[in-house]
Amino acid sequence: MINAYAAHERGAKLEPFAFDPGPLGPRDVEIDVEHCGICHSDLSMLDNEWGFTTYPLVPGHEVVGTVAKLGSAVTHLQAGDRVGVGWQAGYCHLCRSCLSGDHHLCAKAAGTIVGRHGGFADKVRADAISAVKLPDGVDPASAGPLFCGGITVFSPLLQHNLSPTARAGVVGIGGLGHLALMFLRAWGCEVTAFTSNDAKRDEALRMGAHRAVNSRDPAALAAEAGRFDLIISTVNATLDWNAYIGALAPKGRLHIVGAALEPLALGVFGLISGERAVSGSPVGSPAAIATMLDFAARHRIKPVIETFPMAHVNDAIAHLRSGKARYRVVLSR
Amino acid sequence: MINAYAAHERGAKLEPFAFDPGPLGPRDVEIDVEHCGICHSDLSMLDNEWGFTTYPLVPGHEVVGTVAKLGSAVTHLQAGDRVGVGWQAGYCHLCRSCLSGDHHLCAKAAGTIVGRHGGFADKVRADAISAVKLPDGVDPASAGPLFCGGITVFSPLLQHNLSPTARAGVVGIGGLGHLALMFLRAWGCEVTAFTSNDAKRDEALRMGAHRAVNSRDPAALAAEAGRFDLIISTVNATLDWNAYIGALAPKGRLHIVGAALEPLALGVFGLISGERAVSGSPVGSPAAIATMLDFAARHRIKPVIETFPMAHVNDAIAHLRSGKARYRVVLSR
Repeated sequence: MINAYAAHERGAKLEPFAFDPGPLGPRDVEIDVEHCGICHSDLSMLDNEWGFTTYPLVPGHEVVGTVAKLGSAVTHLQAGDRVGVGWQAGYCHLCRSCLSGDHHLCAKAAGTIVGRHGGFADKVRADAISAVKLPDGVDPASAGPLFCGGITVFSPLLQHNLSPTARAGVVGIGGLGHLALMFLRAWGCEVTAFTSNDAKRDEALRMGAHRAVNSRDPAALAAEAGRFDLIISTVNATLDWNAYIGALAPKGRLHIVGAALEPLALGVFGLISGERAVSGSPVGSPAAIATMLDFAARHRIKPVIETFPMAHVNDAIAHLRSGKARYRVVLSR
Repeated sequence: MINAYAAHERGAKLEPFAFDPGPLGPRDVEIDVEHCGICHSDLSMLDNEWGFTTYPLVPGHEVVGTVAKLGSAVTHLQAGDRVGVGWQAGYCHLCRSCLSGDHHLCAKAAGTIVGRHGGFADKVRADAISAVKLPDGVDPASAGPLFCGGITVFSPLLQHNLSPTARAGVVGIGGLGHLALMFLRAWGCEVTAFTSNDAKRDEALRMGAHRAVNSRDPAALAAEAGRFDLIISTVNATLDWNAYIGALAPKGRLHIVGAALEPLALGVFGLISGERAVSGSPVGSPAAIATMLDFAARHRIKPVIETFPMAHVNDAIAHLRSGKARYRVVLSR
């Protein structure tokens, strides 16, 4: 049996929930959960914001723990290995994306909490390929958020083969954004934080930003015209996207990782005249996650977290909903 | 004196117009015009659609001719050299874009017909760097359209380092689109034409497309879901952009070269989930134009044109406005 915390209907408080996960698949592992981050998408799933939640829902997709059981075909992990699992807990392994190393783009990728039970539990199961080993130098207690929030902002740097000479901006300094600042600073870039929060402005400068710009001040934004090679937006609000396009240098790129619900109303002229792009991406492949962990270890990058005991999961969720989390909430068993 | 054809007010017919171009600048050339294509943006300028036309306007920015006079500092061209000039007739040569070889992104680039007089004339002047020599094997009588329409669709293949293994689509089979089909076919790609015109469908297949899809049939478009690595849109109408995003493979790109006036209402989810991009670009640098001309010569690519004597310029313009041009109109002296 797995002892978890589940919501039984939309928006409900989590309650203890025990279930039998059945026999372990040959390519799967069972992980003893030590820590699990809470991501904004756990809230979206709790609230069925995207329409595909099934209840009871056990949230949690920023899992760190140790391998407890291995499926019969798993040879690359051993019992006791410390691993992490993010938004995805399985892949088809057969499609062109999987075979190209882009498992995260697999059309059949299994979401860790989509039709499955996640990491707010004593154990969680996952396709062994989706469980990535923590290298030495990565602190297990704070590593959970790297597996969803971290890879989401690290992946664009790999995708676009970002040069350390780039001028980069980060819009929204929260769970994802604060990690983006740290990664970009270690990457060698000029780093600008866009935030409307004065307290976060100072923290952003301490976390790695060279500069901060008030994201709600149209004049401040206009003064940035033509500056950035890359702007990563982590927010899910609707911004003045064309102002951010205007802040891009020739050949610059606005990269969206925040799931804004409203369509972007993009003027074509800004894209054409400056040879600019708008792109997006979800999380990252297992190989990209391993690359990120090595980079984080080498540069001593770790998420800034607040820790709650897993038994206080409802308090932790309320704290995240309040918008006061700085910068990621992690449950520890 | 230069003898040209000019419109003296918005939408007016062109009339003979003689003007004194003044002394030749040290870095400029004067070109004896032999041929000049007519581009849709000549019509936009005639109609002051973009608000920056000055009258009298001498249109024409797909010029082919021979060098007649050289400025004192010009050493890389000789009198008699056959050259072409496109949308841009000058650069600052000093900004980071110019110094990086991206002259076409220079903020001070001079449009050939923006505050200057263009190629509907016996002579035209241009910055010598913007006048690119025609290699052997490029037919002067049909080459004019390569210098604006051609480079506009060729440049994206260079920008994105397109693989010959790509599946590529072209939306809109007109002056730009028909050249895109030819370039992509020679590039080695699988080529799909999107058109709503049955006659153009058959011609598109003859010009290099492997397949054609009815761009106005939602079911046909839906059946293309997930197929394309690159779609180049040459149209300036508003399309169901999200349907084209849906037609992209993982990591695919919708590249816009048609100056659609309405903003693109792009759903974020399609970009994020498939790691897709929307980008745009204007024409190309002198180096890119030279590369295109070499490629066109090697692959015997030439625009499909209809020729009018320059003295019949108003008939030629009326023909282009009628939407019946197949596929580019060229004036010859």
